[in-house]
Formats: sequence, structure tokens, C-alpha cells
Amino acid sequence: MALIVHKYGGTSMGSTERIAQVAKRVAKWARAGHQMVVVPSAMSGETNRLLGLARELAPGKLTQDYLREQDMLAATGEQASSALLAIALQAEGQPAVSYAGWQVPIRTSSAYTKARIDSIDDQRVRADLDAGKVVIITGFQGVDEGGNITTLGRGGSDTSAVAVAAALKADEAMIFTDVDGVYTTDPRIVPEARRQATISFEEMLEMASLGSKVLQIRSVEFAGKYKVPMRVLSSFTPWDIDLAEEAQSGTLITFEEYEHMERAVVSGIAFNRDEAKISVLGVPDKPGIAYQILGTVADANVEVDVIIQNVGKEGKTDFSFTVNRNDYAKTIDLLKDKVLPALGAAEVIGDPKICKVSIVGIGMRSHVGVASKMFRVLSEEGINIMMISTSEIKTSVVIDEKYMELAVRALHRAFDLDQLAT
Amino acid sequence: MALIVHKYGGTSMGSTERIAQVAKRVAKWARAGHQMVVVPSAMSGETNRLLGLARELAPGKLTQDYLREQDMLAATGEQASSALLAIALQAEGQPAVSYAGWQVPIRTSSAYTKARIDSIDDQRVRADLDAGKVVIITGFQGVDEGGNITTLGRGGSDTSAVAVAAALKADEAMIFTDVDGVYTTDPRIVPEARRQATISFEEMLEMASLGSKVLQIRSVEFAGKYKVPMRVLSSFTPWDIDLAEEAQSGTLITFEEYEHMERAVVSGIAFNRDEAKISVLGVPDKPGIAYQILGTVADANVEVDVIIQNVGKEGKTDFSFTVNRNDYAKTIDLLKDKVLPALGAAEVIGDPKICKVSIVGIGMRSHVGVASKMFRVLSEEGINIMMISTSEIKTSVVIDEKYMELAVRALHRAFDLDQLAT
Repeated sequence: MALIVHKYGGTSMGSTERIAQVAKRVAKWARAGHQMVVVPSAMSGETNRLLGLARELAPGKLTQDYLREQDMLAATGEQASSALLAIALQAEGQPAVSYAGWQVPIRTSSAYTKARIDSIDDQRVRADLDAGKVVIITGFQGVDEGGNITTLGRGGSDTSAVAVAAALKADEAMIFTDVDGVYTTDPRIVPEARRQATISFEEMLEMASLGSKVLQIRSVEFAGKYKVPMRVLSSFTPWDIDLAEEAQSGTLITFEEYEHMERAVVSGIAFNRDEAKISVLGVPDKPGIAYQILGTVADANVEVDVIIQNVGKEGKTDFSFTVNRNDYAKTIDLLKDKVLPALGAAEVIGDPKICKVSIVGIGMRSHVGVASKMFRVLSEEGINIMMISTSEIKTSVVIDEKYMELAVRALHRAFDLDQLAT
Repeated sequence: MALIVHKYGGTSMGSTERIAQVAKRVAKWARAGHQMVVVPSAMSGETNRLLGLARELAPGKLTQDYLREQDMLAATGEQASSALLAIALQAEGQPAVSYAGWQVPIRTSSAYTKARIDSIDDQRVRADLDAGKVVIITGFQGVDEGGNITTLGRGGSDTSAVAVAAALKADEAMIFTDVDGVYTTDPRIVPEARRQATISFEEMLEMASLGSKVLQIRSVEFAGKYKVPMRVLSSFTPWDIDLAEEAQSGTLITFEEYEHMERAVVSGIAFNRDEAKISVLGVPDKPGIAYQILGTVADANVEVDVIIQNVGKEGKTDFSFTVNRNDYAKTIDLLKDKVLPALGAAEVIGDPKICKVSIVGIGMRSHVGVASKMFRVLSEEGINIMMISTSEIKTSVVIDEKYMELAVRALHRAFDLDQLAT
């Protein structure tokens, strides 16, 4: 008998028919003897509907008092879907009870709309599990020290599920979603892309931060912090699929230090074409330059991703970075108006038609020459590299957008990801 | 400066436009220097929508576990409307905060879907009022000792408002609704019916229990128990109506013992055509008869209203009572199958086409001959009285349904209600 946490997204909870399917799947797991906790999202569309009503009443208001009420409002979506799932389970003959975040309680910070989980009390939930009930806990929300309802921000239900699994020391958190696992890269770009049976926590974290949308990055961080085994799998398989088969499906995110002999050095290729490149040329090469440039950009609420400062020549240097493509024009104007004059820099140039391609793999730690192999593969395809950024387990390059598919396919093949055992 | 509780029903909260109107009205009261607490219902239609989803998932389920989840589900309706009203007030520049029942907390019994309020903590609300905030408290719901959400049953928001007013020792609970007060009788039957400026608590209680739908009877009981001055008034007047005028509009339910010299003996005429009359004839006149008949009826979950046992003759008596018209056929069958054989009674007869007409007035306590005047008026109109039932401040008669309007108009005129000072 294991203690399992299931998480179902808004699409899986999108109608009473779909909720009934979720109930049948959960009841199957409970009947097999497992202690079951379920964390559902709101029915799809409901959160947007509620926030739309709020915006009609107070367009543009974003005070703390407003955000408190917005959380109070948005939290009703998960409370309703959780109660409906409990009812659907009871209709299946499976005892079930639902709890809002404050009832568990899930204690969070007071940062409305983006609260962080501080602690989760497991007492009440454990008592119900021991009494044979399925326990349903609203995703996305908690309660602060002052007894106010808080939400964790969009996608927060993933984080709720992992946090609940951590607090209960669950054997596994199963994240049911609309994809059937984590792939070596996007199958829409590379048809040979393969589902990975397992992926390490660190690889998953890099994939999530590099633009893979399978899992919310905070949930992966949480899983890492508390070593929660976490599985991503499809909620679109028939509910009565064999349980043993379902338990092995999708992708397991692991924390075990295993031998990498049989594993590829690179486990996945991520890419992102939402960025634009900006360079400030002829900058005086002296301390404080990076801060003067990026501080100005940060003050305008523009997030910066890759940052490169070239080696200086004759007391001058070039400084390049990437921003989200939506912020491109705004950032160029800002630099021209504020930074060039103050700094005495020569010129600001940019290119919005770039993309970032990354190889990710925990094996890169112990293998030399992985990055240089990446550069060689791209060079053989005639692809010019504009910027390079590395970390312990990934290498990212910025290249011309038009070469993106070509680069991803060439790298996928060169690192033998087509042959990865699943 | 007074402490005022406003209650708004589902129609008043039916759209963002209407919620914005409520916010303007409440802000007007707050700007006039009053401490304001508002108890809103869910947006009209929302509670039915939510309960409809539950029924789709579990048709016919009514276990305690189911009812717990149904309350969890239904309570989201008021939580959402309360947050929206807080947002609308903030958009008006009026600081406001909303609380769900459990946040106040409003402690109730554990009887899901029909919980009773045990206590209300006023500490948190008072602190906010003193800080100049309008406090919005979800109607219809509370929390039990085990931390489970409970609801008070349909119309429970009236009760919430009065209970909150009692806990805060508010100067007045103003119940905004779709009628502009309590009338001497239904103006659709008697065009001369007049709005009553005041009505005593006891009269209001009789009117509510006799079928007047202006106020939920439990809220009137609550107001009586805690002596909360309570006013029923229209939410359809323009929000910017002069405040002094609004404060005197509608009908005030009072607890003061005032002189009745200038008041009519009878203050209102109630009527109800939802009932049917049933008689068991030739019943042996011995102890236990009422229990044998009515116990059987009660066991079938049929509610009995007026009950008459005639004086016995020759060891036999007749026993008559009224039930809701929907239960008529079922009750007749039940009596024929179970009671006649066991009792050796002669016959069961009935009449579904009856109505009950009642005169209500606190002045009946001190005036003799009021009931007999009622009987005389009806007799002069040629209306035969089938059953009579009296209490300290009301007299009800059961008559043929076809005479209902005639009886109500004749009584309204005979007791000078057309001339009642408002």
C-alpha cells in the first residue's frame, strides 16, 4: 500500500462528465489499496471568468486590498471543483472529503496572487486517509497567518500537489496533464522525439526554465527541495487502463544518483523563440557597467535572460543580452534615451529574430567535450552562433531564428536522442 | 454615527452592473459617517447552477458526506459575490474587506444545509470598522466546530444579516429586497393594500409563518431573540436617493411596547392557497387518536398545518387537518391504507380546493370581539367557514378557494386597513 497524490488540471476537470472520469480513475487507485490524496485545479475557464468579473468592476486596480479580494474570489474555483470531485467519488461508492487550503491548513506567505507555501499540517488529512477516505485538497491556494485566503499564482496547483506530497511523505506525486510525459524535445519539431521514462530533477528544472511548459518551474523546485518523486502522465488515457501499466507510464522525475553508463549524456533539447537580442557597443570597460545597463532595464520591469560581456579592447567593450521579444522595442528606446548618453557608449543594436537552443543533461557533469560537440554540429550545418551561455548541466546558444528547427533536429540526432531507451 | 448592517439578495447582486450599484449605495452610507457591514447573497442563479452540477454527478445522493460537500460547493457563491462587492467598493474609493463565514468566524451547528448559528466573533470585524473599512460578510454560511463549512439553508442570508447585526449590537439591519416593505396584504389581490411603516416583531413572525414571503421566518425569530431592529426596503430605488429618506423607507420591525391607541387592531391579512383539507370521519373518540392519525402522516414526511378535532358524539368524532396540496393524494391514500383499518374509522374525505385566510394584529391581545367580527364579515359575504385556528395575535379560517380574493378584500376593508397611516 502506497500513499499517492494525484493532480488534475483544469481541462481534466472541465465538465461534470470529465470530473466523473477523474473520480473513476481515483477510485480505481483507492480500490487497489492505495491511500489517495487528490489536488484538482478549477474547472477550465472558471478562473478566467471570475477574474473577468473583477476586472469589469475595477479596471486597472492592483492595490494590496484589491489583490486580497481577487484571491478570495479566484479561490472559489478550486473549492467548487474539489467539492464536485468528492461528490463524484461518493457516487462511485468511494468515501471522500474535500478541504480548502485553509482547512488543512496550508500556511503561506501573505503575498496575494503569488504566495509561497510555508507549511502544511498533515494531521487532519492523515486521519481521513486512515479512515479509508480519499482526501481532496484544493490546489492553487492557502491561508496566511492573518487568516486571509492566498493563491499561489497561475499553475500553482502543480506546486500545491508537490507540497502536499512532501508534507505527507507520499510515495509519488502523479501530475495528470494533457501530454503523456517529458520528451527529448518537442515532437512537433522533431518527429523522432521520444518520451523519457525518467529524467533527473536537475534536468527537469533546466528544461522547465528553458521553456518546456510541461511542468510549472516552482513545482519542480519544490519537488527538488523535498525529494518528492514526481511523475508527469496523461489524463487522456481511458480511466480503466491497467493500474500497473499506468503506474509506469509518463515520465518519472527522480532524485536518485544512479549510474549513467546506459544513459545518454544529453537527455533533452529545449528551445525558445520568444527572445530578442540587444547589444550595447563601445561601452567603457570599467567596473559598474553591467549594473548601469541592466539596472536601468530592470527598473522598467524587463526581465533579462542570457547576458554576455565580451573581453574589452582598447578600454572599450561590447555588452549583449536577451529579453522577451515583447519588451524588445521598449528596451531599445530605453537604452538609447537613458544609457547611451549617461555611459558615453557608441551604439545600441539589436535583433528580434533570434532563438535560443539548449542541450540539457546531467551527464554533462562527468563528460568533457559535450559543449564543443554541440558547436561542431551547428558549424557543420552552417549555423552561426551569436551568444553562448552555460551551466553545469546545460549549454545554450543563441542563433538566427530561421535555423531553429534545423539546429534542434541536428542536435537531437547527433546526441543519439532518437535511440534513447524509454 | 451608527453601526448599520445592509443585506442584499441575489437579484440585487445579479450582475457586475448591479453589484456596482450596491457599492455606490453602501459607499453613500459610509460617507455619511456610518460604520457599515454588508451581507450579500450569491449572484442570482449561481447557487442553482452549482447545485445542478452536484446533482448531475450524484442524482439522489443525500448522505451526510454528500451534504457536507454540497455546502462546501454552495458556499463558494457568496464568497465570490462578497469579494466582488469589496472590489466594487474599492473602485468607488471606499476601503472594504470581505470575509467568508469561517473567517469571522460565524460558528454554527454541524447540520449541513440547515445549520443554526451558535455564535459570532465580532473582534476582527470591529477592528476593520474602526479602521474605516466597510466589512462584507458572506451570507448563508458558517463553520462548525470541526472546521467544516456549513450553510443555513435557502434564504439563510437574511438570518446571517440579522445574526451579524445582533453580534455587533448594530443600530439597524436593513434588508434590501425586491419589494419596498411589508404590506397590509398582497397588493396584487387588494389594490388598496398599504405599506406599513412599522410592524411589531410578533406580527411579522405570524405574517412570515402564514405565507408572507417578504422575510425568511428564521431571520425574524433571530431578530426577536436578540431584539435587532430590522427594516425591509427596496433595492430598486436609485442608489443616490437621499439618505435620510432612505433611512425611513420600507417597513421597520420593532420591539418597542408602544401604545396601540392610534393603531389598527388588525395590521395585516395573510393568505395561502397551497393547502388541502383532509377529514377522517367516524373515529372512535378515545385517547391517542390524534397521535395514531398524525403520527402516521408525520412518518411519511408530510407536514400538517391546521388541526381540528370536533366534539365527539355517541363515542365517535371527526378529525380534520390541512396539508400542503402537493401531499394531498399521497396522504389520502396513506390514511385509507393504514389508518382506516387500524382505527375502525368510517371514512376519509378531502378537499384540495381550499385556502387559508388569516388576520394578524398585536392589538387582538387587548381587544375582544376581533375574531367574531371576522366571522361576521365573512358571513355577510356568504362565505362558509370550514375550519378555524387561533393564536394570541392571529385568527385563521379555512374557506373555499374560490372565495379567497373576496374574503381578503372584505376583511381588508372591514378592519380599516385601507386607511392605515403609513
